Amino acid sequence: MKLLVVGSVAYDSVETRHGKVDRALGGSATFFAMASSLFAPTSVVAVVGEDFHKGDLERLERRGVDISGVEVAKGHTFRWGGKYSTHFETRTTLFTELNVFAEFKPKLTHKQANADLVFLANIHPDLQFDVLDQCKQPRFVALDTMNFWISGERPSLERVLRRVDALFLNDEEAFALSGEGNVLHAARAIHAMGPQTVVIKRGEHGAVLVHGGHAWILPAVMLDHVVDPTGAGDTFAGGFMGYLARQPAITTEALQGAMVAGTLAASFAVQDFSVDAIERATLADLHSRHKQLCGSLLPAGIDIALVGPPQPTAVA
Amino acid sequence: MKLLVVGSVAYDSVETRHGKVDRALGGSATFFAMASSLFAPTSVVAVVGEDFHKGDLERLERRGVDISGVEVAKGHTFRWGGKYSTHFETRTTLFTELNVFAEFKPKLTHKQANADLVFLANIHPDLQFDVLDQCKQPRFVALDTMNFWISGERPSLERVLRRVDALFLNDEEAFALSGEGNVLHAARAIHAMGPQTVVIKRGEHGAVLVHGGHAWILPAVMLDHVVDPTGAGDTFAGGFMGYLARQPAITTEALQGAMVAGTLAASFAVQDFSVDAIERATLADLHSRHKQLCGSLLPAGIDIALVGPPQPTAVA
Repeated sequence: MKLLVVGSVAYDSVETRHGKVDRALGGSATFFAMASSLFAPTSVVAVVGEDFHKGDLERLERRGVDISGVEVAKGHTFRWGGKYSTHFETRTTLFTELNVFAEFKPKLTHKQANADLVFLANIHPDLQFDVLDQCKQPRFVALDTMNFWISGERPSLERVLRRVDALFLNDEEAFALSGEGNVLHAARAIHAMGPQTVVIKRGEHGAVLVHGGHAWILPAVMLDHVVDPTGAGDTFAGGFMGYLARQPAITTEALQGAMVAGTLAASFAVQDFSVDAIERATLADLHSRHKQLCGSLLPAGIDIALVGPPQPTAVA
Repeated sequence: MKLLVVGSVAYDSVETRHGKVDRALGGSATFFAMASSLFAPTSVVAVVGEDFHKGDLERLERRGVDISGVEVAKGHTFRWGGKYSTHFETRTTLFTELNVFAEFKPKLTHKQANADLVFLANIHPDLQFDVLDQCKQPRFVALDTMNFWISGERPSLERVLRRVDALFLNDEEAFALSGEGNVLHAARAIHAMGPQTVVIKRGEHGAVLVHGGHAWILPAVMLDHVVDPTGAGDTFAGGFMGYLARQPAITTEALQGAMVAGTLAASFAVQDFSVDAIERATLADLHSRHKQLCGSLLPAGIDIALVGPPQPTAVA
């Protein structure tokens, strides 16, 4: 198996200016796998409840995702409910029901333990550590986390961070984790904790890759229609890791390509509720959007003749 | 005269995590002119009080700025006080004292009325209109505004907008002005109000240029040291308009170069209190920072081979 993800498979209830959905397929592992499977064979480790629809797992299977590691446990599936403000500036969590997720003890199959790349989605750092402990020799491990674990479970988080190659987080989380108030300083402090690759996710403002002493920024695709931002970060990570899984080596150029792939995948995720839009997307769709992204970046390398005397001006 | 700016010359009291300053040189026209004068001869129309230090006007003069249009009126200079949160996420205005600005009636000299390019900084839209009315035949007029005028003086604002070529504003202001919740839709609505060029300022996230049916995004320079963001937007506009003033024609490429020049200028403004850092900056400094900006942009055009079967993977 190329790529392993451990995270949540959930039912989300989401309301945005464009409508609402109830008990829609969601969860970090779901969004991740819908994107990563466009690029590389992906296996999911997660837990769902007895109420989970078989048809929803089949959606992942149709994408070629290995769902043999999705345990069905007694009880209800993890549920999350949230509501976005009109222009998506803020999100209010209406409820979080851990349900079967509260007792989740991920157990990898032999095949999963031999995964080439591993993504530890945003769950308790001790669970992330347990999964990593079961992996034989992954060549690249990435981790996502959140302020809840940064402030509440720091020793556990630091323990697992020492063993991961890449950390995905947003500005605020990077500041909280590092104690620094600047992204470049924060990334340097995080390098010292373990991860030599730091990816700062900035939603509609794109993402920053910090690796090998350099930092690169990539804007997000400018979209004229956004329906629901839920899962954008996990979809970004899915595109990133899936792309990386099919590269012969984890080089700087491979990481840069992964940033582009993640950005393209995320741009689909937000254009419908649940995983609907990323589920419909094909590699050909991503290819078209790649052209759109490139066309929307201002040619900053333009020769703006900053040195030397002002040029003569004629009235246009 | 190449470039005319009408706006405020002020004394600011600012507090950030890096310290505080009291009665420091500020105001939209000041920041603008410190940047624009790097590129093109600039003339300022503004008013100050009797308390204004001659030495502060001399700082503009040393930059080659024509200050003959800065009127000294009975009373105190416009003052503004503000405080930034630790990581600059929010700014609280502590006080605003209009003072001599309350009675400001800009009156252009003959030379100023013949300005080639005009920037109407963020003041009452009726004052902006009066200035524009005194101009003979400017080849490019840009305007900055804020939510206060958008919600409180809409008819006046719409009247002046019909006569300007470019509008500078942030996302929130674009949404408020257009009633749209998406930047691309908002820009289209603003085109219909007059300005065929819309520049969306996004602070540390860069800026978007919308012109001729296209939208381009340019990230800001990633800085490892930010002292005080006050004036960044006006400095951006100064670099933008100054660069444009020395181009033979207002083409798409000229506007793109102006975006780069504005971005570079703004990156200096935030690195010290007041206008201190942009005042120290030379064109050679901007040139160095241009290289830094280009090096920090991820090569999005990288061939990421999105179409076709996955490539073979070898363990690195």
